[in-house]
Amino acid sequence: MTKGKLFVISGPSGAGKGTICKEILDEDKTLKLSVSMTTRKPRDGEVDGVHYHFVDHSAFVSLIAEDGFMEYADVYGNFYGTPKKQVMDWMDEGINVILEIDVQGALQIKKSYPEGIFIFILPPSIEELKNRILGRGSETEETMARRLGAALKEISSIDEYDYRVVNEDLQEAVDRVKAIISAEHSKINDEEVERIINRYKEEL
Amino acid sequence: MTKGKLFVISGPSGAGKGTICKEILDEDKTLKLSVSMTTRKPRDGEVDGVHYHFVDHSAFVSLIAEDGFMEYADVYGNFYGTPKKQVMDWMDEGINVILEIDVQGALQIKKSYPEGIFIFILPPSIEELKNRILGRGSETEETMARRLGAALKEISSIDEYDYRVVNEDLQEAVDRVKAIISAEHSKINDEEVERIINRYKEEL
Repeated sequence: MTKGKLFVISGPSGAGKGTICKEILDEDKTLKLSVSMTTRKPRDGEVDGVHYHFVDHSAFVSLIAEDGFMEYADVYGNFYGTPKKQVMDWMDEGINVILEIDVQGALQIKKSYPEGIFIFILPPSIEELKNRILGRGSETEETMARRLGAALKEISSIDEYDYRVVNEDLQEAVDRVKAIISAEHSKINDEEVERIINRYKEEL
Repeated sequence: MTKGKLFVISGPSGAGKGTICKEILDEDKTLKLSVSMTTRKPRDGEVDGVHYHFVDHSAFVSLIAEDGFMEYADVYGNFYGTPKKQVMDWMDEGINVILEIDVQGALQIKKSYPEGIFIFILPPSIEELKNRILGRGSETEETMARRLGAALKEISSIDEYDYRVVNEDLQEAVDRVKAIISAEHSKINDEEVERIINRYKEEL
């Protein structure tokens, strides 16, 4: 069986990576979404195992000690991380996995799993990014400037990625990511070359 | 302007690369098909400039001398080749070019233009390849064996290609190739990285 692939969908906050992932998972039921683990408390409406795996601090730290994360980070005192096991199990079963993550996390994953396919979601412009962040409400001028500066710094890491998709029109961006997933499955790899040649040889 | 890309669609005779190319060109009017040059006489219904550029022997040889071909071959006394200029001009204008060619030709092009994207069209099985060749009529047992042997030899060159698409269901194969074309346009290249970062910097 062909191993599944890991598609890491990343980009600055406000670029729309979450919406794109949701659409792709809706349209392609063969894909699975990796669910993060966190030590922060669930917010209203958040479901354990769906939005996050909610665990306590000591469970998280144990998993760190077991090298159980593809990446993790401490964000203002709360841990967030991508548990390794579920992702690896799915891929061993031939399932393709989508991982939605911020740029810092994606760069960490690239170190531990460079075979992943790294897709950077870009906002159409800084102006539009500003509008989207404003649309989420409650930004002061200062925090806005800080967020845009952070976004620019994140965009500077784009050369670490394999693909970039500009999220101007949502459906177009979704189609682009779907095309990347399809094309990656048409790529030729050495293991497969041998299998193909042997199969035709046997038939002849 | 971004330079156009060259998509080389290749594979053994009978794999269906011609039909796939025709469909793709019908569905995506932004693509252009490279037309080969030949010294053989036009057959009934063949139009100069559409099916081939029909030229005489001395015109072909002059163009060889000018290094005017991406590849060429002498097939039973007739020359066939891919003129360089039209393909390069289109790419300079940002147009993506489709080139349908046999495996020997594709391997030659890979040497002169490794930036091309090389797609191998596979028949679903040797059995099916046999049926398709038979469908074209007038094969003796001996020529059939020779053609299948040649196909197997060609398939052994698949590791020189970037992608492989199995032509079992035509529309599925067409969609795969279209996904490859789309994904190749989402690929990150150094030149673009700089342009992206500068654009966002200026806006900030």
